[in-house]
Amino acid sequence: MNAEKHVFSMLVDNQPGVLSRVVGLFSGRGYNIDSLCVAETIDPLVSRITLVTRGAPALTEQIEKQLNKLVNVIKIRDLSGPDAIRREMALIYVLTPPEQRAEILRIVEIFRCKVVDVGQEHYTIEVTGDEGKIEALVKLLRPFGIKKIARTGTIALLREPN
Amino acid sequence: MNAEKHVFSMLVDNQPGVLSRVVGLFSGRGYNIDSLCVAETIDPLVSRITLVTRGAPALTEQIEKQLNKLVNVIKIRDLSGPDAIRREMALIYVLTPPEQRAEILRIVEIFRCKVVDVGQEHYTIEVTGDEGKIEALVKLLRPFGIKKIARTGTIALLREPN
Repeated sequence: MNAEKHVFSMLVDNQPGVLSRVVGLFSGRGYNIDSLCVAETIDPLVSRITLVTRGAPALTEQIEKQLNKLVNVIKIRDLSGPDAIRREMALIYVLTPPEQRAEILRIVEIFRCKVVDVGQEHYTIEVTGDEGKIEALVKLLRPFGIKKIARTGTIALLREPN
Repeated sequence: MNAEKHVFSMLVDNQPGVLSRVVGLFSGRGYNIDSLCVAETIDPLVSRITLVTRGAPALTEQIEKQLNKLVNVIKIRDLSGPDAIRREMALIYVLTPPEQRAEILRIVEIFRCKVVDVGQEHYTIEVTGDEGKIEALVKLLRPFGIKKIARTGTIALLREPN
C-alpha cells in the first residue's frame, strides 16, 4: 500500500460542532490524522481546517468525498501537490550546556531560526519551514537534549489564483 | 461574564480517536474552540494538542478538569499566563497592484515577515508572532486585498523547566 501524505484544506462554517464532525469522520473510520490546524480566517464566519492524513490514493479520494458531503464544509481542496505552499512552525526547547551554545547558535543561524527565549540552561527556538526542514533541525538538535517541542502541523495555500 | 482567552496544552497518546474525544468534549457542551493545533512530538507515541478557548475563569477551570479525566490525556497545562511563550504562524495571500508593491514590502520588512511566493498579482507572506502581531499585520494588509489566509492557531511552551 502506498501510504502517501495528503494535505486537505477546508473552509468551514465557524460554528461549534463542525470540527467535531470533521474529526469524527476520521476516527469513526479508523483513519489517522497526522496533524490538524484550525483557526479563523479574515471572515469571522468562516474557519480554515488544514488536515494531514496518510493513505493510499483510493482511500484519500474517499475521504475527500465524505468530507465534501458534510454540512458546514464550504470548500475542500487537496493541497498535497507542487502547486501549493506548505509550511509548519515549531517551538523547540533545547538544553544548552555552556560549551555547546556556540554550536547550537550556528545551527540556529544556518536554519534561519529565532531564539525566542533564553534560560540558564536552555534556548527555546522558533523555526518555520516545510516538514523536511523541521525534521532535519530536530535531528541535529536532538543530541543536545530536546526537552519539549510544540509543532503546529502543516498549513497550506495554493500558489496561483484559482 | 469575563470571556478571557485560555490556552491549554495537552500531551496525549498518539492514537486514532483521542483528538475526537477532546474535541467532542467541547462540542458536546457547546464550548467554543477558537483554534487548535495537533501534531506529533519527538516521541512518536505522544502528540501535543494546543487549544484556545474563551470563557469565564470558572468555566475554563471546569473544562480543564474534564479534559484531565479523559483517558489518553497524559498531561494538561494552562499556558495562558506570562510564564509561557505563545506563537502563531500565518500564510497571507495578498494582492499586489504594481504601484503598491513597495509599500507592501516595507510592511513585510517592519513585521519581519518573509515573502514565500510571488505571482504576477500577489505575494504570499509568511508571518510568525503572537496573536496581536498577526492581527495588526492583517489590518495593515487588508486594504490591498487579502484573498486568502491560513493560520495555524496558537502553540505554546512554558518558559522555564518544570
